Amino acid sequence: MDILSSLARKNDTKMVLLVMDGLGGLPCKETGLTELETAKTPNLDRLVPKSSCGQMHPIAPGITAGSGPAHLGLFGYDPLQHNIGRGVLSALGLDLDLGPDDVACRINFATMRDGKIVDRRAGRIPTEECARLCKILSGIKMEGVEITVAPEMQHRAAVVFRGEGLWGAVTDSDPQKEGLAPLTMQPLNPESKRMADIANAFVEEAKRALKDEPVANMILMRGFDKSPAIATVSELYGIRAAAIATYPMYRGLAKLVGMNVVTGVKTLDEEIKALADCFADYDYFFIHAKYTDSSGEDGDFDRKVSVIEEVDDLIPSILDLRPDVFVVTGDHSTPASLKGHSWHPVPVLLHATTARWDTWLTSFGEGQCARGSLGTFESRHLMALMLAHAQRLAKYGA
Amino acid sequence: MDILSSLARKNDTKMVLLVMDGLGGLPCKETGLTELETAKTPNLDRLVPKSSCGQMHPIAPGITAGSGPAHLGLFGYDPLQHNIGRGVLSALGLDLDLGPDDVACRINFATMRDGKIVDRRAGRIPTEECARLCKILSGIKMEGVEITVAPEMQHRAAVVFRGEGLWGAVTDSDPQKEGLAPLTMQPLNPESKRMADIANAFVEEAKRALKDEPVANMILMRGFDKSPAIATVSELYGIRAAAIATYPMYRGLAKLVGMNVVTGVKTLDEEIKALADCFADYDYFFIHAKYTDSSGEDGDFDRKVSVIEEVDDLIPSILDLRPDVFVVTGDHSTPASLKGHSWHPVPVLLHATTARWDTWLTSFGEGQCARGSLGTFESRHLMALMLAHAQRLAKYGA
Repeated sequence: MDILSSLARKNDTKMVLLVMDGLGGLPCKETGLTELETAKTPNLDRLVPKSSCGQMHPIAPGITAGSGPAHLGLFGYDPLQHNIGRGVLSALGLDLDLGPDDVACRINFATMRDGKIVDRRAGRIPTEECARLCKILSGIKMEGVEITVAPEMQHRAAVVFRGEGLWGAVTDSDPQKEGLAPLTMQPLNPESKRMADIANAFVEEAKRALKDEPVANMILMRGFDKSPAIATVSELYGIRAAAIATYPMYRGLAKLVGMNVVTGVKTLDEEIKALADCFADYDYFFIHAKYTDSSGEDGDFDRKVSVIEEVDDLIPSILDLRPDVFVVTGDHSTPASLKGHSWHPVPVLLHATTARWDTWLTSFGEGQCARGSLGTFESRHLMALMLAHAQRLAKYGA
Repeated sequence: MDILSSLARKNDTKMVLLVMDGLGGLPCKETGLTELETAKTPNLDRLVPKSSCGQMHPIAPGITAGSGPAHLGLFGYDPLQHNIGRGVLSALGLDLDLGPDDVACRINFATMRDGKIVDRRAGRIPTEECARLCKILSGIKMEGVEITVAPEMQHRAAVVFRGEGLWGAVTDSDPQKEGLAPLTMQPLNPESKRMADIANAFVEEAKRALKDEPVANMILMRGFDKSPAIATVSELYGIRAAAIATYPMYRGLAKLVGMNVVTGVKTLDEEIKALADCFADYDYFFIHAKYTDSSGEDGDFDRKVSVIEEVDDLIPSILDLRPDVFVVTGDHSTPASLKGHSWHPVPVLLHATTARWDTWLTSFGEGQCARGSLGTFESRHLMALMLAHAQRLAKYGA
């Protein structure tokens, strides 16, 4: 990546990265075709023989990527070198304002009896109940620190601590097993002592505030972290980047690496409209389509097929903008048959006037892309390829 | 590479590496075929289904390689770990004798007025004019140091300083912008102080010697460097290597890694004749064909096609020598449509009795090689493959 930075130069080209979250799949046992191969994607299929195709490992062969590392890879970062704490991902996912000096942490509501945790998930209380309890916790006042608590799903929540001299190297209070008492949180370095003290005091306050709750009468904390200090894509590659995503976490990840987040976008159609609206203002556009992943997570093969077809419908509107480099891929695989993220490589298509043509391929799918001219590579090389095809990288050595 | 060295063993096999400079290309918009795919290459095509094919990244995906790093990769070195200074490449390109303790540097003739550089290129003086001025500079005498100045093209030249205790960590005198005074050259470490002092004194002498020139009345210096200390291919792999190239820079690069340079070769035909003449004397032969690159740089698709066809004509003469391992590839891509080096991977063909057969392939070209059994890999692994197919590498571990 140091090399990329030293070679990067500016020009007037436009690069578009369309990410279908969890795009990669596994074959339906009857047809042998994956979700993507089953979907009717005439627009993408038309591009394929005049594009370079391949497949990417989000991290490395066999490694299943979470959304954080998977996207960092797509943006050109080595996901193994830039770890984002769970607390930070949760906070980003809730659209919480997370400054560079803030510390974020995950919260589980739990049930405690006689000083021991008897249910680490408080019977998976409803999300509305969680929201009500978060409001109570947000009312906790501590000197010199601003506390924001927001509900995730069921018993899960996130908290952001803002104040001077806070560091995130703090152990969890979650004992990971029922029948044990919550742990006292410990600083892992001297700088983090203040954060650990505040966290322990916060748990005491929370215990007091929740003491009359029938189920969720305690909290467990884990995954303390600050936003990682990451060089921005503009510092690294000299690009002005825009992120267009309907889900907060992806907007948050893009913001982390210095992209400008386009706001007020709620549907895929609005995403493409937003792309057109700001096309003159940026060099690089990250467009995120969420529902390929959610349908995969739900194990709904047919719905994932439909979502892919909906995305395919929008391809002509993107091409009308005449981007110099257009990439379609996923951040990782989410096969419906596995109901979750998987380690399988994701297909990738790169369309540019500077690209070779995979004339022997006929449609966009895992099997076809596995025979494409880009070969199989790690996602973190995609940014270099996009910059190269945009002719934004100088020659290395004479 | 450390592993390779520890596994390398000697035998009587012969390995031939035929490099068509800048071989990789991009499709003609009408036919969808690259220069190589357009060329009629019956001899190479006949080899393909009885060879292993693939494609190589000279450095990494998306990175465009200069000739120096690209060739180091082919010879088994990591181009990112062995950087060759511009001064050294220039000196090698001019066939200057560059010993391990010499320091080389590039010179620009420039125009100075009132102590400021008003033209960093001295109006791009003709090369003959440059040659005349280089002779003047070669006459400069300084105690304890031998100075050789040789003309490149137009305003460009190279200088080699030979003497005791010279080191190349010296800043440039070129201010990079017109309207500024030349910079005093500074040592970047204590060992390089003597070189910096000599260089500054040399510029003063040059200024005096050129003071009556109407245009080129000053020099700017940049890219100080020594030959990198590189272990030779004979030390690393136990091979006796010969380099056959018509262009000085490639001979120089080969010399850098300890190859014996065959002299007096001016054409492709003479290269193949030279190969036959010295075939008994070496284990490894690097043959360099230059004009695929130059025609690509000129943007001349058709001429590049012809050059490739000329090289194909010579394949039978090479095969007649019955090399145990025969590799045909490029150092990087130089598509005519881009008129310069590019990042696209280069096709590679490996023919050996120990090689698998890519029976499903029918001709030598980018698209076919992308589907070959060697897959896509970095050039720096090619040397290991050649040694392996020559059965010159012992087993790793029991």
